[in-house]
Amino acid sequence: MPANSRHQVRRTKERAQYEAAAVHAVLDAGFLAHVGFSVDGQPFVIPMLYAREGNDLLLHGSIASRLMRNLAEGVPACISVSHVDGLVLARSHFHHSVNYRSVVCFGTAVTVDDPVQKAQALARFVDAILPGRAAESRESDRNELAATLLLRFRIEDASAKVRSGGPRDDPADRGLPLWAGVVPQEVRFGAAIPAEDCDLPPPPSVQRLLGGAQP
Amino acid sequence: MPANSRHQVRRTKERAQYEAAAVHAVLDAGFLAHVGFSVDGQPFVIPMLYAREGNDLLLHGSIASRLMRNLAEGVPACISVSHVDGLVLARSHFHHSVNYRSVVCFGTAVTVDDPVQKAQALARFVDAILPGRAAESRESDRNELAATLLLRFRIEDASAKVRSGGPRDDPADRGLPLWAGVVPQEVRFGAAIPAEDCDLPPPPSVQRLLGGAQP
Repeated sequence: MPANSRHQVRRTKERAQYEAAAVHAVLDAGFLAHVGFSVDGQPFVIPMLYAREGNDLLLHGSIASRLMRNLAEGVPACISVSHVDGLVLARSHFHHSVNYRSVVCFGTAVTVDDPVQKAQALARFVDAILPGRAAESRESDRNELAATLLLRFRIEDASAKVRSGGPRDDPADRGLPLWAGVVPQEVRFGAAIPAEDCDLPPPPSVQRLLGGAQP
Repeated sequence: MPANSRHQVRRTKERAQYEAAAVHAVLDAGFLAHVGFSVDGQPFVIPMLYAREGNDLLLHGSIASRLMRNLAEGVPACISVSHVDGLVLARSHFHHSVNYRSVVCFGTAVTVDDPVQKAQALARFVDAILPGRAAESRESDRNELAATLLLRFRIEDASAKVRSGGPRDDPADRGLPLWAGVVPQEVRFGAAIPAEDCDLPPPPSVQRLLGGAQP
């Protein structure tokens, strides 16, 4: 993807990547996006689940959602996904930071009405939350599909930004008697909690997520 | 905060909270926000560090940042903060969800130019990343303050939305031979990695974060 003015990273340019593979890697590592668009000059930033399909992001919500319907009208939108990987603790306040991977995507959304495509997309959302889970649960029925507004957001421009590694203290600060370093941060999953009315063992998707440590 | 049209939650209203305490609790649990605003009709959603001070959110960036300067002009902005607490695995695709806490804030930003306030704010950012860390590191000097654009975003309206608990399957699905439940998710910190040129032991802030398990 060529860099143009809308998504070109201007600050700390050495952290920016425009290749689709770099953008997709950040997107595929998550399922929660922050979706921004304006309605009558008022910006909204709404957390939404997403699933990537090629160079599109699938979004869904209730057919009754006012904000989803605005987005479905094809207004310019911006979708951002971020992962924090660590706390960067420098000798100076100024150089404190976090390690992160983030993507900012620009584009517009179109509605998907075909029921087969909608059903497939809902399955992809399930697998985006937990790979393999869609095959372990019931597909959407006609009423559920009718209640769902499915949007396909076409990524027109995107950039990824990644910070990793240790603090970058000023040379003059390195001799100060102050600790500096990184505290890595990651997402961890706890033991599965079955629904009250469920006495089955956790399925393969959950066992894989938890490293086989589940009873 | 009274509910008016801009921030009134319309979908799944039982998850919405408008009290300042509920909003602040979600904000205080994080340090990464997604900040949205439009420039010439193009929406931007940018991940930024933040620190709450009363009913304001402090934001900062480089004085050279084009986007920060746009925000500093007082354009309408929307700031969203989200935490994911678990994967909600239902018997149907349709009822899959995540447990989360999120806040959406509406307001505008003003620039803070006073160097004393700027220095205090930069210290607050450090403590937002890791409580107690500001006192363990060097305060910002005159040049660093001059290079920093500090914004005070005044929260005019806000709502918090929280989902917790197990899946809410349709009664007709509860007899299906399918596992349903929740996999809790949380942020965990790993062992501190000192900077290459640092041979001091981890400071109290890091030891507290890691539960005293650090060497």
